[in-house]
Amino acid sequence: MNDLKQPYTPPAVWTWNKASGGRFANINRPVAGATHDKALPVGRHPLQLYSLGTPNGVKVTVMLEELLEQGHRGAEYDAWLVRINEGEQFGSGFVAANPNSKIPALVDHSGPQPVRVFESGAILLYLSQKFGDAFMPEDAAQRAECLSWLFWQMGSAPFLGGGFGHFYAYAPEKIEYAIDRYAMEVKRQLDVLDRRLAQSAYLAGNEYSLADIAVWPWYGTLVKGQLYEAGEFLQVEQYTHVLRWTNEIAARPAARRGRMVNRTWGQPASQLHERHEATDFETRTQDKLL
Amino acid sequence: MNDLKQPYTPPAVWTWNKASGGRFANINRPVAGATHDKALPVGRHPLQLYSLGTPNGVKVTVMLEELLEQGHRGAEYDAWLVRINEGEQFGSGFVAANPNSKIPALVDHSGPQPVRVFESGAILLYLSQKFGDAFMPEDAAQRAECLSWLFWQMGSAPFLGGGFGHFYAYAPEKIEYAIDRYAMEVKRQLDVLDRRLAQSAYLAGNEYSLADIAVWPWYGTLVKGQLYEAGEFLQVEQYTHVLRWTNEIAARPAARRGRMVNRTWGQPASQLHERHEATDFETRTQDKLL
Repeated sequence: MNDLKQPYTPPAVWTWNKASGGRFANINRPVAGATHDKALPVGRHPLQLYSLGTPNGVKVTVMLEELLEQGHRGAEYDAWLVRINEGEQFGSGFVAANPNSKIPALVDHSGPQPVRVFESGAILLYLSQKFGDAFMPEDAAQRAECLSWLFWQMGSAPFLGGGFGHFYAYAPEKIEYAIDRYAMEVKRQLDVLDRRLAQSAYLAGNEYSLADIAVWPWYGTLVKGQLYEAGEFLQVEQYTHVLRWTNEIAARPAARRGRMVNRTWGQPASQLHERHEATDFETRTQDKLL
Repeated sequence: MNDLKQPYTPPAVWTWNKASGGRFANINRPVAGATHDKALPVGRHPLQLYSLGTPNGVKVTVMLEELLEQGHRGAEYDAWLVRINEGEQFGSGFVAANPNSKIPALVDHSGPQPVRVFESGAILLYLSQKFGDAFMPEDAAQRAECLSWLFWQMGSAPFLGGGFGHFYAYAPEKIEYAIDRYAMEVKRQLDVLDRRLAQSAYLAGNEYSLADIAVWPWYGTLVKGQLYEAGEFLQVEQYTHVLRWTNEIAARPAARRGRMVNRTWGQPASQLHERHEATDFETRTQDKLL
């Protein structure tokens, strides 16, 4: 804790103070690699997903459910739960699938050798390409637009989750400067989306695409006031075009299913901790989130 | 400024305090859109790049120079300088090219209508696809690996630039908690890369790819101690595999040229503010950075 009369000066060399870090202190480390041996389970489908129902996880389960809606039988998948608060992302099997120790990770067993894919955006693009450029517009300009917004999400959400969410909701003390910095940026991002969605039905243009699948789990949840309980603070109801788009996507059957997978919070009946068959959803009911 | 006896409590509704924000306060805003009318210049080549020689800008100029090295004449480009400290990213022409008001932005005039692409990762992938999957491995596993590390860079660098760099180098006061949080994460990221590059020559495997082009401008500069003057603080010399890889890439002619384009700092002879022809480099000499 700083004394205001003696401002903090960083030391010459940073050292790890294991006592700091707030709510996620136990899962933040300055080194990579496995902390323990643990193999990953493998189910019967070619696609094996290791994930959790956070926005980054939901991107991939929505994509898989959308592919199944389109009739791509090869998109059948097993979704396994990775409890990041218990450090399961540091098991040796998970690290082999994703050396970055973050959910989601996908392993594709459909070829001669298993292929790993990590980072939610990479998984979306990999699945799109695997299934004939699914959810990627054909028109050259809309294709470029789809890629642009897909990468926009990847570069922007760290300011929402790792920045705003951390300092507003999770850090052990409220730091005004940091909350202010990230609130400003998140409102700017919402305005960027709102202006785009005032011009076109979807982010890439007139068709639902990978870009929407990537952006919706983060910014759709935020604009509904369901992320970090920050709806009033950020005055999210201002972003009416984002709200219109969010509600439209939320009504899609694949989006409704995708957001239940690997979910460990909310109404118990909305949580499908593991997904192995299409029929697994039959006993679930979506709660009122989104 | 917080009084320690009265911890900061965020208000119900965030409001914009234009006086806060540190070094970049004048370019951070909670709203999107143009602040003034200004058309973008257009040169004679099909590809028009609007950028600045920061790591995100260098990714694209290295990619374009690598394509030219491979003999893709269609990759000839005009690179125009966007002075972000002077707010040029808020001009109406730039906002039309990138509604997110960040460099780099590319406009491709080679088709019937101009096509815009924004976000450095999207531009890399767009250019790769435009030139026959250039710098994308053919092998399925290495292709997945290339996509994974490309997206890893996009999701990770905001913690390096927007997080660590901001709080360590640019914020108006040094906040111990924030510096500690981001120093830990950046060291973890360097260790993730170091372990990968202990296994293979390049990020996607045995060939130089888009993933290296994306990661090198950020993490190569960092590991050479040339980003935020943080080399000693982060003990970057520990990451010997990242250093080996960095030095190898730095020796590539395209990397040497790419990092001079749109550069406005360092030795004057290393700065090529605008690039319009291959011969523009002839009067330049690279300074010792990287």
